Amino acid sequence: MPLRLSPVPKRRNRARSVLAAITLAALVVARSVAADPLPSWNDTHAKRAILEFVERVTREGEADYVPPEQRIAAFDNDGTLWAEQPMYAQLAFALDRVRQLASRHSDWRNRQPFKGVLEGDIAAVQASGERGMAELIAATHAGTTTEEFAQVVASWIRTARHPRFDRPYTEMVYQPMLEVLDLLRKNDFDIYIVSGGGAEFMRPWVRRVYGVSPEHVIGSRARVEYRVRDGKPVLVRLAAIDLVDDGAGKPVGIHQFIGRPPLIVFGNSDGDFEMLEWATAAPGPRLGVLVHHTDGDREWAYDRGSRFGALARGLDEAPSRGWIVVDMQRDWTVIFPFQR
Amino acid sequence: MPLRLSPVPKRRNRARSVLAAITLAALVVARSVAADPLPSWNDTHAKRAILEFVERVTREGEADYVPPEQRIAAFDNDGTLWAEQPMYAQLAFALDRVRQLASRHSDWRNRQPFKGVLEGDIAAVQASGERGMAELIAATHAGTTTEEFAQVVASWIRTARHPRFDRPYTEMVYQPMLEVLDLLRKNDFDIYIVSGGGAEFMRPWVRRVYGVSPEHVIGSRARVEYRVRDGKPVLVRLAAIDLVDDGAGKPVGIHQFIGRPPLIVFGNSDGDFEMLEWATAAPGPRLGVLVHHTDGDREWAYDRGSRFGALARGLDEAPSRGWIVVDMQRDWTVIFPFQR
Repeated sequence: MPLRLSPVPKRRNRARSVLAAITLAALVVARSVAADPLPSWNDTHAKRAILEFVERVTREGEADYVPPEQRIAAFDNDGTLWAEQPMYAQLAFALDRVRQLASRHSDWRNRQPFKGVLEGDIAAVQASGERGMAELIAATHAGTTTEEFAQVVASWIRTARHPRFDRPYTEMVYQPMLEVLDLLRKNDFDIYIVSGGGAEFMRPWVRRVYGVSPEHVIGSRARVEYRVRDGKPVLVRLAAIDLVDDGAGKPVGIHQFIGRPPLIVFGNSDGDFEMLEWATAAPGPRLGVLVHHTDGDREWAYDRGSRFGALARGLDEAPSRGWIVVDMQRDWTVIFPFQR
Repeated sequence: MPLRLSPVPKRRNRARSVLAAITLAALVVARSVAADPLPSWNDTHAKRAILEFVERVTREGEADYVPPEQRIAAFDNDGTLWAEQPMYAQLAFALDRVRQLASRHSDWRNRQPFKGVLEGDIAAVQASGERGMAELIAATHAGTTTEEFAQVVASWIRTARHPRFDRPYTEMVYQPMLEVLDLLRKNDFDIYIVSGGGAEFMRPWVRRVYGVSPEHVIGSRARVEYRVRDGKPVLVRLAAIDLVDDGAGKPVGIHQFIGRPPLIVFGNSDGDFEMLEWATAAPGPRLGVLVHHTDGDREWAYDRGSRFGALARGLDEAPSRGWIVVDMQRDWTVIFPFQR
């Protein structure tokens, strides 16, 4: 039966109109409260700078307007989107993996850095230096197919717990940063993670945790080789590094994937320095932000000289380069979602 | 004023209903004609296989349904999206670049392969072998910043003309393939170009020509190095190859960028074999398509033993692997847009 729109007869409608007006007013109030896109940020300079920048580049017809296809935002991961203390999650993963694989490698009980890992002697692990680290990575990150490695990571991230907070690592993310990701997504930004960590270590869980597509993860990577095993094509992870996506490697990684500097870049350590330097020197409006870890109670307080995520040059040069420095203690009402 | 839906009174509605039915029928007919998403394809097996596959993976609730975030399609470029005869466009670009730079390199007049290029002696260029090709690429593709190189490419692609058709290279694209790109875009596929050609050679023009984002170009690439020159950060292209994105390098390139095999893969040469092999061996519905150059009149006819885009193993194994082979002469009503 055909339908048509018809006005409701007027007579019995006055009460309903009043009710509608009240409901509408309530909704407007509720919406303007709910509309703060960064509710876990205090109303300080950092929050205002982020909001103003996003508004400036998305307002059509204005001089600094940037069309959606050029709205690219890049985020470091460790220390910027989630915690990197007391050690990078990927290092915790590697240590767990050594323990898991030890039964197949009887020589590890007597050989550094494996001996140190198995005995909990982190000083001995560190004393093995770069060669030791390379051996650790080869033993825990190479030799599998890419599919097998993804399964190992997925299983670890489901079960491993952070030593201080006794929470899954995927809960060790920064609530204020989740809000920034959301704000940018709503404003048609393409969000990339650009991390010194391994791309294949992040891809299995970034969609669930950050709402970021796995193909938007740029990270360090092992060489992989295509082989056909018993008729089944596989990619095998080799014990050789293809890209260290850290420091000057970050602009290189971004260039390989995206081909141009992002509009917005968030980092937290001097490993992000070149990425911020490159992006914010490019023409047009650009926003560079450094997250400064200043909250020893709710998270950690560290910068210069920290073993993980050291920040010195970035702090020194941020003012002259116009980069925003986020003071986690001052600028964030909450750090982790579970602290709300 | 609030509105509500109410049935139209029956009485004065018979004539209107008849009229509505006729209009509706006319619209349905018009729509089904206008709605052929592949109008430059004859109604043969290839077209039907493509349309059926797309319908199968996009119909919600069906067994083979694939959610939008997993709808990834990969297309080779040379010979699949645009012509690769009488030589790859990028080789024509390199030769033009040698001529352009010759005045700065007086030694080139007496040194192969440059001498051959400058004298139009292609046999001499070929005789210089792999070492010669590497020298050509180093001389024409390295030493600039990434920005300078993008400008050189953009300027070449604006002015260079194809030797046989006397058209800009960007018109040497296949109309039926543009329609496939469009069909997939409308069905929420993410489209990637996966080419043995250089990523930086394609990125400046792929959006305009194919509607594909530059960051969705996976190609061969030179090593680049981050430097700060007089305070300005740049990426310098080095005379070293970082990835040859061809043959077994294509699954590697796709894995680096996307992290999983595409749902749909189009290629045309044995340089695409491993990409099709890898993608179509993955679990779930997969579509592999090879474009077979069979039309010497409207385009070129070549396969086995061709200098550019040789296709032998792919032709031999397509039937047993369930890959669709497109016969350009039989399956396409038109090849280039300018032939319509």
